[in-house]
Amino acid sequence: MSGIKVSIIGAGSAIFSLRLVGDLCKTKGLSGSSVSLVDINKKRLNAVHNLAERYASESGANLKFEKTTDMKQSIKDADFVINTALVGGHEGLDASRKVGEKHGYKRGIDSQEFNMVSDYPTLSNYNQLKFFLDVAHSMEEICPNAWLLQAANPVFEGTTLISRYSSIKVIGFCHGHYHYGVESIIKSLGLDVKEVNWQVAGFNHNIWLTRFLYKDKDAYPLIAHQWTEEEAMKRKPEYPFDDQMSPAALDMYRFYGRVPIGDSVRNGSWRYHYNLETKKKWYGEPWGGMDSELGWAWYQDILRTVTDKTFSLASDESISLLKEFPPDVKSGEQHVPFIDALTNGDQERFVLNIPNKKSIIAGIPEDVVVEVPVIIDKEGIHPEEITPPIPKRIMDMYLVPRMLRMEWALEAFVSGDKRVLQEILIRDPRTKSFEQAKAVIDEILALPFNKEMKNHYENRCAYNK
Amino acid sequence: MSGIKVSIIGAGSAIFSLRLVGDLCKTKGLSGSSVSLVDINKKRLNAVHNLAERYASESGANLKFEKTTDMKQSIKDADFVINTALVGGHEGLDASRKVGEKHGYKRGIDSQEFNMVSDYPTLSNYNQLKFFLDVAHSMEEICPNAWLLQAANPVFEGTTLISRYSSIKVIGFCHGHYHYGVESIIKSLGLDVKEVNWQVAGFNHNIWLTRFLYKDKDAYPLIAHQWTEEEAMKRKPEYPFDDQMSPAALDMYRFYGRVPIGDSVRNGSWRYHYNLETKKKWYGEPWGGMDSELGWAWYQDILRTVTDKTFSLASDESISLLKEFPPDVKSGEQHVPFIDALTNGDQERFVLNIPNKKSIIAGIPEDVVVEVPVIIDKEGIHPEEITPPIPKRIMDMYLVPRMLRMEWALEAFVSGDKRVLQEILIRDPRTKSFEQAKAVIDEILALPFNKEMKNHYENRCAYNK
Repeated sequence: MSGIKVSIIGAGSAIFSLRLVGDLCKTKGLSGSSVSLVDINKKRLNAVHNLAERYASESGANLKFEKTTDMKQSIKDADFVINTALVGGHEGLDASRKVGEKHGYKRGIDSQEFNMVSDYPTLSNYNQLKFFLDVAHSMEEICPNAWLLQAANPVFEGTTLISRYSSIKVIGFCHGHYHYGVESIIKSLGLDVKEVNWQVAGFNHNIWLTRFLYKDKDAYPLIAHQWTEEEAMKRKPEYPFDDQMSPAALDMYRFYGRVPIGDSVRNGSWRYHYNLETKKKWYGEPWGGMDSELGWAWYQDILRTVTDKTFSLASDESISLLKEFPPDVKSGEQHVPFIDALTNGDQERFVLNIPNKKSIIAGIPEDVVVEVPVIIDKEGIHPEEITPPIPKRIMDMYLVPRMLRMEWALEAFVSGDKRVLQEILIRDPRTKSFEQAKAVIDEILALPFNKEMKNHYENRCAYNK
Repeated sequence: MSGIKVSIIGAGSAIFSLRLVGDLCKTKGLSGSSVSLVDINKKRLNAVHNLAERYASESGANLKFEKTTDMKQSIKDADFVINTALVGGHEGLDASRKVGEKHGYKRGIDSQEFNMVSDYPTLSNYNQLKFFLDVAHSMEEICPNAWLLQAANPVFEGTTLISRYSSIKVIGFCHGHYHYGVESIIKSLGLDVKEVNWQVAGFNHNIWLTRFLYKDKDAYPLIAHQWTEEEAMKRKPEYPFDDQMSPAALDMYRFYGRVPIGDSVRNGSWRYHYNLETKKKWYGEPWGGMDSELGWAWYQDILRTVTDKTFSLASDESISLLKEFPPDVKSGEQHVPFIDALTNGDQERFVLNIPNKKSIIAGIPEDVVVEVPVIIDKEGIHPEEITPPIPKRIMDMYLVPRMLRMEWALEAFVSGDKRVLQEILIRDPRTKSFEQAKAVIDEILALPFNKEMKNHYENRCAYNK
């Protein structure tokens, strides 16, 4: 086995990169592979590279590492490119959010119906979407046969954009929250996981438990029976994103008739998100879920702690990384198992984001990327038939509205027509006047890191003013 | 020619009924037909019946008339049933609107994105939708082969509902505003109408000029060249619904790339409708269009005047009705020409509302009613191929969002689930809190004429409280 080459873009994100490296070390079929780490932040890149090499060496894994700040250099001869980069970082997100809040858009203009996740921007993120296309177009030139694993948010918008405007094979990846989500349900019902037959379907961050059988029988009556309002209300979350059994999840289930899974729980309508008080009611005390100001601050703290720890681990070679990251546990991320299954051919089931070709989800256009269960083997990707189908209420009141917001965001990005951004905000319940929508967009375009975005939106379309 | 039987439900609406009767008198192929007038308002019914008989007699037309307050009696042996009834009348609309405005919903909760027309309710109109189904189901029993001409609003929601839940042949009819709209464009450009090749497509009150050729060449560049902002802004409307060349229409055309036709101009987003001042800017002084408080008051005045005139004409048999309603002009309504074409078989072109079977409009489900040009002859209805197709921006940013609101309204009506009404309002930019949405719906349900609606929405679904 000569191994394959994996390029990780945005590798300075330590948690994510070390999870992938850990998984690679534990995957025998990928022994002999090389990993190219890319980040524009040299300090983070060096730290992650140091930890990755040490971890592999301590594990006795046969992996080669390289590091570079040049994406194009890295993807040379790559078989798989994993893009996890957040252009502009959390600082950029925060700056845009701050402008939004100044103009009356609580949690920023990118918090939208069915898309409240605080690092999933679709409107203010020109730089991010532009970079997605840059990576894909660079791959067309440099490694046209490689797979692009699109792990950076917004996965839904990004994977759809790339699949429409590039010939590269692209798959959208999310953390395995669906797995945690489905397991939470199974655990809370006290069922034997081996006897459960489940299916989820929808879009990234918008998936629903469409099939749930126990010993071949419909197990939804068990959920209806055991998951009571009283239970949900008295349950306290252990951490902000401990929301699978929250009152919001229960309410969505009761309204839509199926259980929302993983991050979908964060993506209800404004009903759950008007303000901190409302969020606390629906996602639990004290944080009000991941996407409140409190939940998000908690998460930023964790990110800072991890970054600090990364640097301190990297600077002290006497520390055993195997102790820090026990080698017997896989990360739960899907990327490495996916690469393994495709390369070495053991059939495995994943939940991935792929274009809706041959109408995997009926009623969704074929050029929209859906998140569905698939079987991966050497031959490629085999989507499961979605059966039973997604209920009409979920389609009409949740998925299609969410899909439209993806289309609107891409229409703005592709056309460079500022009026589209304005019109999207006119349809936002927080907008009271056209002037408000106009002002917030102009101020976001004026942010120093949005120079290229401003140029795009002010010079490309004849009607931009 | 033995003639056919036409039943007009809601015939007490004098303007509309007399237009139909006038058209019937002028249509030789329908000589010998009988007309059954139905209304629950006896005074109006008697007046219209009097005028209809006198008009036919003065015209020398061979038509028989009957009148009844009993719909089921009227549709016996009918070949065509025209439903134009507004259950609860304008008083009902006004009462619901008043409750809406009390709770912060300017122009009432039924004024919605892409559906701002003030007598086109989709949420508070349980009685109306229920009556649509009552008529259709009565026809299944009494005259199963008759055609139902659905002329009462909401035509989009109503025709879709009936086509899904009844086996009756149903067609949705609107006034010929598309005709007036297209002609306004042609006239303003100074073109020879005979050399214009046009097509419109969309939903009722949401149609767009998708094809516009002059002497076989694309004539959109003429519109772009001659229709300037300056022209639009300085133009004063002659009456409130004189809006085809309004700034709103121009703005919609420039944003969507095609000209909105007829009532579609009234159905932009909130951008044109925030308040009276905004409406004046976009629809012209002094009324701010048909759907402002001023435009609507103007229209109510006209309706009152017409009703008064109807009664005074009916009470004075010495007046010549032919002088009042000159016999040489057809009304422009499509109903009678449609009946004539279907009965007697001269091929004629109409713009009608029919289910989207065989994807007349690509990308819209087949069980949704679309408004498209069709050729009618003895064989039936032949929809035109829509070419060029509707642009993607119109589909994604206008038609599909409008379609979803139809689906949501029908989901509420069919399920009897009050939470659907609440959730629709949560997605309304005028809603600031869940409590506001809840309160306005509860108060509308408490209106005395909504007793059946209240029962439907409070007892049918397990989660209604």
